[in-house]
Amino acid sequence: MGGAQRTVAMGSPGADPWELLAPDASRRLLQAAADAFAERGYHATTTRDIAGRVGLSPAGVYIHFPSKAALLAQISRSGHEAALQLVEDNLAAQPDPVARVRAVVAAFAAWHAEFHRVARVVQHELPALPEADRAYVVDLRQQIERRVEEQLRAGVAAGVMEVSDTRGVTRALLSLAVDVARWYVPGGRATPRSIGELYADLAARMIGARQ
Amino acid sequence: MGGAQRTVAMGSPGADPWELLAPDASRRLLQAAADAFAERGYHATTTRDIAGRVGLSPAGVYIHFPSKAALLAQISRSGHEAALQLVEDNLAAQPDPVARVRAVVAAFAAWHAEFHRVARVVQHELPALPEADRAYVVDLRQQIERRVEEQLRAGVAAGVMEVSDTRGVTRALLSLAVDVARWYVPGGRATPRSIGELYADLAARMIGARQ
Repeated sequence: MGGAQRTVAMGSPGADPWELLAPDASRRLLQAAADAFAERGYHATTTRDIAGRVGLSPAGVYIHFPSKAALLAQISRSGHEAALQLVEDNLAAQPDPVARVRAVVAAFAAWHAEFHRVARVVQHELPALPEADRAYVVDLRQQIERRVEEQLRAGVAAGVMEVSDTRGVTRALLSLAVDVARWYVPGGRATPRSIGELYADLAARMIGARQ
Repeated sequence: MGGAQRTVAMGSPGADPWELLAPDASRRLLQAAADAFAERGYHATTTRDIAGRVGLSPAGVYIHFPSKAALLAQISRSGHEAALQLVEDNLAAQPDPVARVRAVVAAFAAWHAEFHRVARVVQHELPALPEADRAYVVDLRQQIERRVEEQLRAGVAAGVMEVSDTRGVTRALLSLAVDVARWYVPGGRATPRSIGELYADLAARMIGARQ
């Protein structure tokens, strides 16, 4: 279980993933937009809905963001940038490929529990993103997959893992962690930390890690 | 890999999950509603949008379904009923707990690839379901979880699996399969069958199956 406890956390409990990435006024709008998109969906939300949640007129929103699409794009870009940074930090903190995979899966799963509302919006509204923003976040996703798959290749080469389909297993490891955002219920039996610890152990089994 | 090949398939390629559950006119409406919800979200879709996709007026829709909510409810109920039936069929076809877990995960993952569009709608629009329908599908989900967790308890008791948290691992096994619907792209390298085979092997590892 040690691998999970050594993971690098991102933000504090209750924090939002763009906490360090946007000034305060923009942050309140991003949070309001994420809440509105989560409740009604992107297409059924108007700029007026979002403005009303923070006591602004639609014109007040346009000072910070040119459109509803720009709000969605900023939420998605910031969320993916934070996720990639989380992966990089956990990779850098670990001494070997098995420990790196354990730590990344633990942190990624815990993060998707913590930020489940934003993660759901980002996942579901990917088709609504403007083309340039979609290309940017797809590139970040591919970077995350590549960084994890590198660990699987290194682990197989070093004889400390047994994985025949490194790409398929990488996708499964990340998918398992991402889907936490779908089913996670705050205040339930499973906490972000306990999920991270269980998933680190499952990840070690999935890659056939030598004990 | 044998476990995956012995899975019981549901429907034929390209079939929809309510194929056997609804008469033809209703089925076309259900498919049109699922397509519209997938593209724009439930709240941004009108009954008129759905009617237009099958060449009907809104009044023509109401002959078959009393409301937009009733269409969503029927999609969700049929989808969950088909999923539970798939689980039961695969459990019944296998001789022991490890083979049952392999077969269920393989079939469930392949099914979520095949029916990814409907699965995405059902997952995302769960909060939009009328209360009675939501309670019904939540009950079906819990039945699926219970049936799989029973296999894990039986396997541990028989000494053929090693699982300390049967509930958490059951959720992880099903989550891994469900999330296929999020990332699956038809026509790509991974097919419903190849995903099912890989996931059967990963499931065997996740439950610590004795070879």
